[in-house]
Amino acid sequence: MRTGPSIGILGGMGPHAGFDLAVKVTNQTHASTDHDHVPVVVLSAPHTIPDRSTFLLDRTQPSPIPALVNLAQQLERAGATAMGIPCNTAHATPILEPLIETIAAQGGQIQVVDMIQETVRHIQQTHPAVQRVGVLSTTAVYRLKLYADALDAAGMTTVVPDETLQETIVNPTIFNATWGLKAQAHPVTATARGYLLDAIAALKAQGAEVIILGCTELPLAVPEPIIDDLPMVDPTVVLARALIRETFPDKLRPLPATRSTSPLPDV
Amino acid sequence: MRTGPSIGILGGMGPHAGFDLAVKVTNQTHASTDHDHVPVVVLSAPHTIPDRSTFLLDRTQPSPIPALVNLAQQLERAGATAMGIPCNTAHATPILEPLIETIAAQGGQIQVVDMIQETVRHIQQTHPAVQRVGVLSTTAVYRLKLYADALDAAGMTTVVPDETLQETIVNPTIFNATWGLKAQAHPVTATARGYLLDAIAALKAQGAEVIILGCTELPLAVPEPIIDDLPMVDPTVVLARALIRETFPDKLRPLPATRSTSPLPDV
Repeated sequence: MRTGPSIGILGGMGPHAGFDLAVKVTNQTHASTDHDHVPVVVLSAPHTIPDRSTFLLDRTQPSPIPALVNLAQQLERAGATAMGIPCNTAHATPILEPLIETIAAQGGQIQVVDMIQETVRHIQQTHPAVQRVGVLSTTAVYRLKLYADALDAAGMTTVVPDETLQETIVNPTIFNATWGLKAQAHPVTATARGYLLDAIAALKAQGAEVIILGCTELPLAVPEPIIDDLPMVDPTVVLARALIRETFPDKLRPLPATRSTSPLPDV
Repeated sequence: MRTGPSIGILGGMGPHAGFDLAVKVTNQTHASTDHDHVPVVVLSAPHTIPDRSTFLLDRTQPSPIPALVNLAQQLERAGATAMGIPCNTAHATPILEPLIETIAAQGGQIQVVDMIQETVRHIQQTHPAVQRVGVLSTTAVYRLKLYADALDAAGMTTVVPDETLQETIVNPTIFNATWGLKAQAHPVTATARGYLLDAIAALKAQGAEVIILGCTELPLAVPEPIIDDLPMVDPTVVLARALIRETFPDKLRPLPATRSTSPLPDV
């Protein structure tokens, strides 16, 4: 029963990420009544999707691609015309390329909006003077240089933690089984928040002018738009806006006005 | 592609309600990794569903029932075996009864979990000594005595605002086009929060021992579990727990322990 454009969300990586993107779509929609809001379908089936990082770091491990193809097809059957995947790691080329190719090869027409490319484009548009972009992410995204390659192609320099900081501070902030964000996000632990602020300070010391919170869990611990004068970019918000633009462009809320004399406010 | 139990959420009434229920399902699930979480599909199509209150107060207005039947059937096709409708007003008998009958008559097997009945049962179980239950809701739910009839059948007395308070304070808190919760929930306005606290105080003065926040928008303005010694019951949390119980009972998080010497903490 397709009746027009509709947003699909392939969620479940982690458990809150799909619903968080859906809330951000709602918040970025220009609406004054229930009926002004856009149609959204969210599929969250975390138990069916093998871990993306595990697969990327060791290709003999189970691949998440078949499950992602299946969920994308279900989204299309539910009416979705454009789809977002709120998981940075799932955008790694060894996952995203075969995913898009398989969907098309099996006759799918759903548009996959690329969160990484959209985030780089967003920084170019909202912070045109920025040269050095800090990126915090899982170790899988770090090693595969997912953001680094996209920023490089756009003429920007990527600033990332050194190996020690990545392995002992950033990755545990996401994955530590006791105090990490995947284990304990409501509320976020003081350890996770503190470690993340340390990592942001380290990237600032390395010359970063803006920070990409390049794992969907990270904005849970750092909801502020600006930390220590550095704008924080939440790729889930960027993806939410791109999905509205691709389906209901008239309903996209304007970005906040930018300031020219101090770090720019971010979405 | 049905592979086992799965939770369906018929959202869009209002725009955040479906995603809010999904987040509450996630938070009420006993899980330590992504893969422990339960499958959830959310359909949010606010533009397709005529306003429930408008229809209930004037039956010549467009009915939301055909749209709700259609969405329930889509949820079932997406694999959902049990379904929640996070909208108190949609549980009014003139909507819910024909909805369930039509789904069954057209061969649907999806189980519709009744948020109103579950909420009354929850109060009986967690606050067994309570006699007088305060209810805040839309005027449509107020006039149709939706909670009042269910509480009465369970042997409890319903405490509601008088007509003036309902029309000038409670209903505008939900619907006012400038400061009401449907127009402005992020952040909630001080007016909406203040009016709601006034209404809670009025019900307490009338002898209420616990308050049902009987519209999915209301917990946005009153997130605290206890206000002025009165437990606040959020029917969306109760519905989230009932959906897990009906699909993955082993994954339902235990309720917080109750205290015997002071008002009981609520979920």
